[in-house]
Amino acid sequence: MQGKFISFEGPDGAGKTSVMAAIQSELEQQLGTEQVIYTREPGGNHISEQIRQVLFNSENTDMDGRTEALLFAAARRQHIVSEILPGMEAGKVILCDRYVDSSIAYQGAGRHLGEEAIWQMNQFAIDGLLPDLTIYLDVESEIGLKRIAEHRSDQVNRLDKEKLAFHQTVRQSYLRLYEAHPDRIKLIDASQPLDQVVADVKTAIHARFAELF
Amino acid sequence: MQGKFISFEGPDGAGKTSVMAAIQSELEQQLGTEQVIYTREPGGNHISEQIRQVLFNSENTDMDGRTEALLFAAARRQHIVSEILPGMEAGKVILCDRYVDSSIAYQGAGRHLGEEAIWQMNQFAIDGLLPDLTIYLDVESEIGLKRIAEHRSDQVNRLDKEKLAFHQTVRQSYLRLYEAHPDRIKLIDASQPLDQVVADVKTAIHARFAELF
Repeated sequence: MQGKFISFEGPDGAGKTSVMAAIQSELEQQLGTEQVIYTREPGGNHISEQIRQVLFNSENTDMDGRTEALLFAAARRQHIVSEILPGMEAGKVILCDRYVDSSIAYQGAGRHLGEEAIWQMNQFAIDGLLPDLTIYLDVESEIGLKRIAEHRSDQVNRLDKEKLAFHQTVRQSYLRLYEAHPDRIKLIDASQPLDQVVADVKTAIHARFAELF
Repeated sequence: MQGKFISFEGPDGAGKTSVMAAIQSELEQQLGTEQVIYTREPGGNHISEQIRQVLFNSENTDMDGRTEALLFAAARRQHIVSEILPGMEAGKVILCDRYVDSSIAYQGAGRHLGEEAIWQMNQFAIDGLLPDLTIYLDVESEIGLKRIAEHRSDQVNRLDKEKLAFHQTVRQSYLRLYEAHPDRIKLIDASQPLDQVVADVKTAIHARFAELF
């Protein structure tokens, strides 16, 4: 496969959306719009959308945590087959907003389903397809939560202890993943100003793919 | 948990439906109707039914085999949480028409997704809940397929080689499971007349649960 599969990860408030938009824009200028794919699960395919409807059906309050994780993995699998693999085979650069590391950090650690259990189960879904490069936007939990509170004041009103503990748990899991997979995952200090974060991400992408940036 | 979890397995044409009806009837006479639960995936809970609708949506012809297996596992998980575990906690006898062994034989072996891969992935779904006893109704593939052809002539018209090969693959997988888990799985010769099969199943259940039959 000739494509380049780059995933972006990080806890809430790391600035992932802004960073990805900047990277996408610059790559499209360099390579042409049709050579760059921005995608995120569940993606635009009809099967993953149906799974998403089950996941977010407000009547499903009795859904078990493992059922939920299996449904996310099913939607991931179909997203891979319907969108990531065809993009890879067409030689495109795929910028994927969250991938398997998010499941490990949020479901495995954050929701207490077990990082190793989530990792093992997701091996079945990804069938060996890990990103060529994972950009991990790291931010201290206090900073990340303050950013959320500033930018999304309708959603988060205060920094309560529960939110902080959850955020810290997710971040610690990301840091363990980074230590375990240093060749794949590059840590970027996302507490810096946006311009500097984008510059660091470009450097990391260039180090992996010399023809980019 | 005080309940008794008994699963019934076997390739098509083994007579599982008839055998289970006879066992259920006799147990209900012995214990009372409310003490015996007959169930099969996806069960009657609303979440598993929603997952089933995705699985059997006739527009989903492009569903990947792994997506399908993950959806079956998600429906299994919710069936466990919504129906099997409550029944176990209430001390009932649960007769379950197919469980994880079916996934290994049909999806792992029959659909070539890999028996070990399906087993590992399903560990996440079942979280250690294996049946106390699994009744495996074994029948040679030629006999099983002939029975299907006789009883369901609208569905199967002839014994073609492809059907025979698939049936044999599924049966061989069941036999490997039986060899690997002799304490849990009891093999019953289902080529015998129905009355004798039911008698053998009752003997196997009684050997495991002395208070039954």
